[in-house]
Amino acid sequence: MAAGVHLIALEGLPLIQPGDDLGGLLAASLERSGLALGDGDVLVLAQKIVSKAEGRLVRLADVAPSSEARRVAAEVRKDPALVELILSESRRIVRARPHVLIVEHRLGLIMANAGIDQSNVAEGYALLLPEDPDASAARLRARLAPEGGRVGVVVNDSFGRPWRRGTTGVAIGAAGLPALVDRRGEADLYGRPLQVTMIAFADEIAASASLLMGPAAEARPAVLLRGLDWRAAENPAAHLIRPESEDLFR
Amino acid sequence: MAAGVHLIALEGLPLIQPGDDLGGLLAASLERSGLALGDGDVLVLAQKIVSKAEGRLVRLADVAPSSEARRVAAEVRKDPALVELILSESRRIVRARPHVLIVEHRLGLIMANAGIDQSNVAEGYALLLPEDPDASAARLRARLAPEGGRVGVVVNDSFGRPWRRGTTGVAIGAAGLPALVDRRGEADLYGRPLQVTMIAFADEIAASASLLMGPAAEARPAVLLRGLDWRAAENPAAHLIRPESEDLFR
Repeated sequence: MAAGVHLIALEGLPLIQPGDDLGGLLAASLERSGLALGDGDVLVLAQKIVSKAEGRLVRLADVAPSSEARRVAAEVRKDPALVELILSESRRIVRARPHVLIVEHRLGLIMANAGIDQSNVAEGYALLLPEDPDASAARLRARLAPEGGRVGVVVNDSFGRPWRRGTTGVAIGAAGLPALVDRRGEADLYGRPLQVTMIAFADEIAASASLLMGPAAEARPAVLLRGLDWRAAENPAAHLIRPESEDLFR
Repeated sequence: MAAGVHLIALEGLPLIQPGDDLGGLLAASLERSGLALGDGDVLVLAQKIVSKAEGRLVRLADVAPSSEARRVAAEVRKDPALVELILSESRRIVRARPHVLIVEHRLGLIMANAGIDQSNVAEGYALLLPEDPDASAARLRARLAPEGGRVGVVVNDSFGRPWRRGTTGVAIGAAGLPALVDRRGEADLYGRPLQVTMIAFADEIAASASLLMGPAAEARPAVLLRGLDWRAAENPAAHLIRPESEDLFR
């Protein structure tokens, strides 16, 4: 780990529209700021701009809610069309209460509303998560760091937590870095095995970037972390999802 | 929010011992590094050094396990003296499985082993959380920033999460900043109410600092975040704990 890390919000990105070449826009913004990506750099992108560029906007008037969606919508007091979208993006409902719908997203993420958001989206539309956020991160990394090396891309989103209030930034996609760092076998300062051995490196990166992005996550949707250090091999954000077999709280 | 934040690991702190004047050692380290605390600065301290300075080390040989501790220890396959300490620091057991003991700590934190750690602690000893981490943060802030103003102190620890693998840094104590930022009533870019409205600001700060601290959290146990911006009024890390009445997963 380095002794200093700089978080820098990218300037001059336009509001992203469906079909935009996000990689090109990011490359131009980096170039304008004189920020060529190099060793130890991680670019964190708000899920919203990745989803928008990938055209994951859905017009709610075009969605026909099923009878199950209508039943759940009445229970959770949400728009039946929105609930239809949530259920179509999910494997199952984890908790349903008035104004709360927590699901297991098809990617395995346990999250509210399958990550579908209507903030910062035009009236009458909803924005789904990227089809495959790890693949999105990998594509953007290939575009922005064609030589590879220790350059990471993380797609972040804001998640609630069961026992703690408020949201924090979480990595839903990652490429070029170890999303999960496994330190089993390493020793503490006294030479004894470390007790905390798996570190959600990409989640800590995602949370750091959220500090700059702000709540709308669109005024500053791209944040560069400069000065990170890592040794472990690359693995995707999918590795951060706890398998159901290890899960005591599903 | 500022457009750039710097994370700086403090240099030259000795290994902290019970009874050490942690505030004085931190002040000396800041001064040596030319880092006078100013507007928008937050100093994040690993729980371990705060606990050690406060003398929260317990010799396991001095602990007499109750019959309940012996029963739980057999179930979770841990040292009965350690389990006795965990139970004495807890309100109740949330989950007990072989090698897993998740409790509600007397402070309300849902966490493994009541936060009691044996890494980076001398053989035969265990380290408890500070008696009152918000008060610890407030005392250190009063020592390091006697004029007050927008200067924060956060005490962080590494927590596991129910649905995600790996630990992230979490704020167990905070002073001088809003640990929880409430943005209810603010608008998105389209003028509609924000959907994500409560932000765990201190947890995101704690996670950022963990990126530099590393897994042992003692090689670099103090990290300065410089360049943060906040408007909300101060509230302590206790505000990050979800009340049982709002909790769907306890």
